[in-house]
Amino acid sequence: MPRPRARRDAYHHFRRLDTRWADNDSYGHMNNVVHYAFFDTAVNLWLREVAGLAVPGGDVIGLVVETACSYHESLGWPEPVDTALAVLRVGRSSVTYAVALFRPGASEAAAEGRFTHVYVDARDRRPVPLPESLRRAAEAIAIPAPGAG
Amino acid sequence: MPRPRARRDAYHHFRRLDTRWADNDSYGHMNNVVHYAFFDTAVNLWLREVAGLAVPGGDVIGLVVETACSYHESLGWPEPVDTALAVLRVGRSSVTYAVALFRPGASEAAAEGRFTHVYVDARDRRPVPLPESLRRAAEAIAIPAPGAG
Amino acid sequence: MPRPRARRDAYHHFRRLDTRWADNDSYGHMNNVVHYAFFDTAVNLWLREVAGLAVPGGDVIGLVVETACSYHESLGWPEPVDTALAVLRVGRSSVTYAVALFRPGASEAAAEGRFTHVYVDARDRRPVPLPESLRRAAEAIAIPAPGAG
Amino acid sequence: MPRPRARRDAYHHFRRLDTRWADNDSYGHMNNVVHYAFFDTAVNLWLREVAGLAVPGGDVIGLVVETACSYHESLGWPEPVDTALAVLRVGRSSVTYAVALFRPGASEAAAEGRFTHVYVDARDRRPVPLPESLRRAAEAIAIPAPGAG
Repeated sequence: MPRPRARRDAYHHFRRLDTRWADNDSYGHMNNVVHYAFFDTAVNLWLREVAGLAVPGGDVIGLVVETACSYHESLGWPEPVDTALAVLRVGRSSVTYAVALFRPGASEAAAEGRFTHVYVDARDRRPVPLPESLRRAAEAIAIPAPGAG
Repeated sequence: MPRPRARRDAYHHFRRLDTRWADNDSYGHMNNVVHYAFFDTAVNLWLREVAGLAVPGGDVIGLVVETACSYHESLGWPEPVDTALAVLRVGRSSVTYAVALFRPGASEAAAEGRFTHVYVDARDRRPVPLPESLRRAAEAIAIPAPGAG
Repeated sequence: MPRPRARRDAYHHFRRLDTRWADNDSYGHMNNVVHYAFFDTAVNLWLREVAGLAVPGGDVIGLVVETACSYHESLGWPEPVDTALAVLRVGRSSVTYAVALFRPGASEAAAEGRFTHVYVDARDRRPVPLPESLRRAAEAIAIPAPGAG
Repeated sequence: MPRPRARRDAYHHFRRLDTRWADNDSYGHMNNVVHYAFFDTAVNLWLREVAGLAVPGGDVIGLVVETACSYHESLGWPEPVDTALAVLRVGRSSVTYAVALFRPGASEAAAEGRFTHVYVDARDRRPVPLPESLRRAAEAIAIPAPGAG
């Protein structure tokens, strides 16, 4: 994981999402799998609401090629989670997002990860150049490279 | 199903909950299983926030003995759902809830069901009389019997 | 529920399916929602493997209009479940299935329910007459009407 | 990802698990989140059946601290998946597993990942030394270090 225990100011786009009773497993906390459902949902909401992609149903769809998560602290129902997004890398056809989950009110991330989409033609599933609206939106939430500026 | 296509005024307690990208299945709508995750979550939130039960972790827990759902209309990500609750029957140890899901803004239910909990001792899992706070809260959202009043 | 605590001989088609770690919720047993994932999967496997429907991707798809479940006994990871099917009613465009879950080796059902599909045209989503292969397969696993025979 | 497109002989422990209808999302393939449900289940089955841990309910439980997955090829219902395990690193209180999913019959992994557990006391949730049966089982499926032997 590149940035252990990041703070909220390391991310650019936030969205609170509800947890569900059954998200908690036998150990009484949100199962490790559920974090990825939040990452997936947060990225797709941003694509739809900010980046101008028709999701689902558009000509261009995002296929997930890599994901990862570090778990710092437990989360779980009944508390909602604050999903957080930034962009680590913009490629010709792909975007790698930094994703995180915060407890409401907490300044340090409870979980942090990465999520890489390759954007493809919905019919033949071959990579396409990023749609211009997506490229612009991704650059607007990019984390500056070290030493940039 | 007792009350096909009920309207919002047939229910007493509402709570909006978020959907997730993966709630939609191959047919592009919320999979029929997910409706029950919303019923389950809505009842447990009400138990915790209104009926005074410590959920999870309390001495008394609700075990599900019967559920049902009629699906009138499709739901799905990215739209949230409005969960709706009322009480159909209060027993010595059990409560049968009427549960429904509405699209935000819609007056007729997209899905309606039933959800019956038996309340048991958390250790020996034997039925116990309803805690007083739960009985009062359940009666407060009960649907009047036909001809009552 | 029509047939409380049915035995295996009340069903005609069986399929063992695996549980998952996260199927168990905070109370240490399979969450009530997961039962429906097994019903849904069992019906769709039977449609594909026995009833001759192309699932997914065919011209005719099944939309779920009603489901129900009675929970007699807890189930859960790591034990698999034996899904069981029969047909309660064959309509012009619909089939109502009796569905159940058994622990491996148990003769009485741990959970029993109903699952009603309306079969529709995949494009316009309007009801169609049951494809002939499906009608025949459904009749072959039908539960005889009382007094039949 | 350390070992893109690994073959079956890179793993030491296999287990076939069933998919479910709703594992497939709007794009018709297994949603990226579900891969982690298989990783989680495969590790917990191995802990229980091979490594001698009482799961769930034992004195020592595994808390997930890091997971990752690379997706090479789509998977999905109705095909089952072959889960595959090996051990990348054995620490004092932790084990990092290499995990993968293969289509039945395929020699190259469709998805590969990592899964790190820290083993803790079930009551106070503090790290404990690996139980001896777990350490031995983990070493038995370890991937030899480069240059070893």
